[in-house]
Amino acid sequence: MTSFPRRIALLGSTGSIGRQTLDVVRCFPDHFHIVALAARSNISLLAQQAQEFAPQITACFAETPEIERAAKEALPGVVFGEQGLLEVATHSDVDIVVAATSGLMGLAPTLAAINVGKTIALANKETLVMAGHLVMQAAQDAGVSILPVDSEHSAIWQCLRGENTAEVNRLILTASGGPFRRATLDQLPLVTVEQALAHPTWHMGPKITIDSATLMNKGLEVLEAHWLFGVPYERIDVVIHPESIIHSMVEFVDGSLKMQASLPSMHLPIQDALSYPVRLNASGSGLVRELRWAEVARLNFETLDISRFPCFRLALEAAKRGGTYPCVLVGADEEAVALFLAGKIGLLEIAELIEAVLERHQSSTEPDVPTILAACTWARKTAREIYMRVYQRNLL
Amino acid sequence: MTSFPRRIALLGSTGSIGRQTLDVVRCFPDHFHIVALAARSNISLLAQQAQEFAPQITACFAETPEIERAAKEALPGVVFGEQGLLEVATHSDVDIVVAATSGLMGLAPTLAAINVGKTIALANKETLVMAGHLVMQAAQDAGVSILPVDSEHSAIWQCLRGENTAEVNRLILTASGGPFRRATLDQLPLVTVEQALAHPTWHMGPKITIDSATLMNKGLEVLEAHWLFGVPYERIDVVIHPESIIHSMVEFVDGSLKMQASLPSMHLPIQDALSYPVRLNASGSGLVRELRWAEVARLNFETLDISRFPCFRLALEAAKRGGTYPCVLVGADEEAVALFLAGKIGLLEIAELIEAVLERHQSSTEPDVPTILAACTWARKTAREIYMRVYQRNLL
Repeated sequence: MTSFPRRIALLGSTGSIGRQTLDVVRCFPDHFHIVALAARSNISLLAQQAQEFAPQITACFAETPEIERAAKEALPGVVFGEQGLLEVATHSDVDIVVAATSGLMGLAPTLAAINVGKTIALANKETLVMAGHLVMQAAQDAGVSILPVDSEHSAIWQCLRGENTAEVNRLILTASGGPFRRATLDQLPLVTVEQALAHPTWHMGPKITIDSATLMNKGLEVLEAHWLFGVPYERIDVVIHPESIIHSMVEFVDGSLKMQASLPSMHLPIQDALSYPVRLNASGSGLVRELRWAEVARLNFETLDISRFPCFRLALEAAKRGGTYPCVLVGADEEAVALFLAGKIGLLEIAELIEAVLERHQSSTEPDVPTILAACTWARKTAREIYMRVYQRNLL
Repeated sequence: MTSFPRRIALLGSTGSIGRQTLDVVRCFPDHFHIVALAARSNISLLAQQAQEFAPQITACFAETPEIERAAKEALPGVVFGEQGLLEVATHSDVDIVVAATSGLMGLAPTLAAINVGKTIALANKETLVMAGHLVMQAAQDAGVSILPVDSEHSAIWQCLRGENTAEVNRLILTASGGPFRRATLDQLPLVTVEQALAHPTWHMGPKITIDSATLMNKGLEVLEAHWLFGVPYERIDVVIHPESIIHSMVEFVDGSLKMQASLPSMHLPIQDALSYPVRLNASGSGLVRELRWAEVARLNFETLDISRFPCFRLALEAAKRGGTYPCVLVGADEEAVALFLAGKIGLLEIAELIEAVLERHQSSTEPDVPTILAACTWARKTAREIYMRVYQRNLL
């Protein structure tokens, strides 16, 4: 697809990636048109967005009757629930679906969009982590592209342009190391929610910020990279790079490395996915600040100390075991992070709880969508049960 | 061209790049065959190389009757002079000509090779600096590729794969800064030849090492980049990067930067030019050491302080004036560096002498090969005359 304007369905329009996607659309009105918007519960913002971008369809995957009522009032014709999301993702006037919902919600509409031939700009990690085998097979069968919106995967994707993936030796994901890059194992149990939410280089939602502090996020990115680029886990490395300037690297079999860099910004990977294979001039947009090397001055790199980041180890173990283990990882992590954010468990107990859930799991091989969703639901329930039995008792 | 083995003519086989080219050929005997070798005066090494690689033709562009005699004895059938170089460069069994002679010698055989459709792996800077307009036009007319062997240009070329050069915002050449990166303007007149020859990251011949110390070499690389990639001078920047790990970068109009990196080694750009578009696995070769990020630890970047590197400024001025100014720059620099290496002038006097020659020059526009060579010869003669008149008197 090389023609403009491109017609976009945006799933998760009121979240961080959704709002930044609309920033990009706003900058390039001749290139991008919003055809469909979907959000969960922030109805007032969704209504504002609908007024500004005049989509043909809006959807609300509301969780309560109150939100549904508010949505009906603010958005005439709004569609609801999973069916609404599917309508948005498969709308006949849509070229690209930006999948920016969080958690499990994105899986079914993403698969549906692939099956009707839409290009996917994928910002939802769980989709590939839990169902990479289904999504990549569906994309191959339908001949559609899955374009990454994550900064790390966008970097790798850019470095692979014009290259032969059979000549890749290693993918090297960079990680800022988060707020606890220098914390010792003694200090980690004592960190507060506020400390964990203070990410040094990226401003994101609370769940992904905690996942960044535990490096679970980097572990999930390794799984995503595996599925997106077809590289085995033993050839995907992570290196700590605190400045978040180099977003990731590819090492080729001849020893040459390619890297992609920019100041930390999600606007760039979003724009690149929407405009691919064209690069749009963003210099007048105010969205992308130019990287001045003399100002950057110094880029640091460190080995990742896995012993202090057990969530990262768990993610890789779940990845290598495969089946429904990654689904259980995702479900248990959602529950554990929610408990941490609520002040119920400590930072290192996130990994303890996830590990306890993984140990109790009996995996299925090559799981289908219902099996995936069931494994994730089982993991959340099991995490809550273990919390009630083990951790709540500890707190008494 | 994608098939192997590739049949190679190597011009300048006994120099630094020539010997490293043969290292690469030695590592991949199924991929590369030496068909022709040419060297200036190191007859014993040329004879050794001829014995090992059994070329169909050898050439010696000797400067003295003694060398000619020695060559005839050691190399039956050897061809001589400019005619010999032309025979090597246009030999009917050759696919790729590696142009690794130093100075002016490479221009005529490179143009001849282009005209008969050979791919050019270009390691000779002067060819593009002095005759970029002729060489790139000839390459376009003949439909042949000019593949860079310099680490900086190879980096840019690798970053541009799969990209649209119309979407390039800036090329950013990295420069180690050489041994005098931190020297003050007061210290520079006092540096010794030994200090200037002690390059911190690259081991090269004496002429290019001095050109690296004065940053003339980086200036010439800006001219080369202009011709190779068709980017105007005002969009080619230089940044100091003392570790020589990132070999250069490309910034695109969307604000995204791509960079290429490796440990400092000329084997990699040589191999990449010879095998393009294939990347050969060099892990068993011992030629390319893997870059371990944890060992690299830190990459530094600094602004280039042009006031301390007048040769760099002169190169850019000559580039922008065009015509035969770049030829005069090259000729005057050869003479001035020879005087510095002989202990006759100081480091900053290299630039003074070049500037004095440039000031006396009357340029031709769109010069042909004889005009280019004449301008260069005039510059060398004028540099010597000015030296005799001004500097020799100073030393009395």
